[in-house]
Amino acid sequence: MARGYFITFEGLDGSGKTTQLRLLAASLTAAGRNIVTLRQPGGTALGDRIRGILLDSRSEAALGTIAPPTEMALMFADRAQAIAEIIEPALAAGSIVLCDRYTDSSEAYQGGGRQLGSERILAMHAAACGNLQPDLTLLLQPSLEDSLRRARRRNQRHIQKLGTDENRFERESDDFYRRIYEKYEEIATREPRRIMPIRDEAPIDQIHNRILEVVATRLGTVTA
Amino acid sequence: MARGYFITFEGLDGSGKTTQLRLLAASLTAAGRNIVTLRQPGGTALGDRIRGILLDSRSEAALGTIAPPTEMALMFADRAQAIAEIIEPALAAGSIVLCDRYTDSSEAYQGGGRQLGSERILAMHAAACGNLQPDLTLLLQPSLEDSLRRARRRNQRHIQKLGTDENRFERESDDFYRRIYEKYEEIATREPRRIMPIRDEAPIDQIHNRILEVVATRLGTVTA
Repeated sequence: MARGYFITFEGLDGSGKTTQLRLLAASLTAAGRNIVTLRQPGGTALGDRIRGILLDSRSEAALGTIAPPTEMALMFADRAQAIAEIIEPALAAGSIVLCDRYTDSSEAYQGGGRQLGSERILAMHAAACGNLQPDLTLLLQPSLEDSLRRARRRNQRHIQKLGTDENRFERESDDFYRRIYEKYEEIATREPRRIMPIRDEAPIDQIHNRILEVVATRLGTVTA
Repeated sequence: MARGYFITFEGLDGSGKTTQLRLLAASLTAAGRNIVTLRQPGGTALGDRIRGILLDSRSEAALGTIAPPTEMALMFADRAQAIAEIIEPALAAGSIVLCDRYTDSSEAYQGGGRQLGSERILAMHAAACGNLQPDLTLLLQPSLEDSLRRARRRNQRHIQKLGTDENRFERESDDFYRRIYEKYEEIATREPRRIMPIRDEAPIDQIHNRILEVVATRLGTVTA
């Protein structure tokens, strides 16, 4: 049996990647393809336990402050388990795997946003994930200005829920999201064959049609 | 203030390393030194949560089989947190840190025993631990024959508790422990300045006296 195809969706919070993943999954399923979807972190029973530690470490003072390398290692533990339990078996069975965030997110958020640097993330990816790379990555990234506006809108809701000091949080998060945006750009430049950036602010169904076209072309090549 | 000194204890289960760590801690405390002791995995609140996942994954079928790279990443998440919360602050304060198992154990058990290879472990160590190495590692490793006999005696007790098929388990564990033993030898040959092997089967207090002498010489050099 032909090996399947591994597609990841990347972008800042609020970029619409989760919506586009669902639309693509629906279209491919309707076209008779076998699809497996997952999001990271999470997806396996063990990954959900790891995810629980990550969430608790943000809210429970008793757990102490989580060190950035600890957070990174936990995310890769979750990813290694998802590869072993879900991604590799699905690809071996010929399925198309659609994954909401993968190692590019670690590189953009921890490497760029939290300033750990790309080198440590890529070393961790090689060690924990045996360097498994997607065949195609759809990076939903409009202009920096639009991305910041969307991320800010997301934060607004968090701030209202948490009651955090709004101005301070916004200043910090603008810098944080700018670093993530720039790291995504760097990755896209480094790996132009794998990464397909989608930059405009077209309506959801137009973007979906373009993604579908790209994927159909790539899958055509694969099955030919 | 002078930076502290970082000592790790390594060896197969049953090698007596935990006993020797405690004796050294007592002697150094009696000599007026500031001591911090810890064991891995565990030691921080977050590390205990991680340790819980590792233990549950061996007993709870619901968690699924833990993939070897997942286990490795979880161990390094625990280690990264111990470094940030305990080891680095203690060294910065001038204390002597005594740690029961560290990255050599990952290399020997996962790299050798579980055959993941040294390269992945060392890449993970660089990424998660910023390559922090002990100043001195005491490797309690008598002859292969004696080591296997001691490990077997330990297993015997596990087998009685678990009711596992004794012969099959013993055959597997002899090979497993031989690979760990050989990996420890390889590390000792690679890093002769850091690693001090202790090979004979002398009484506990004689071995303690030799360790104390080595440590006193090293610390003399450090504080001179």
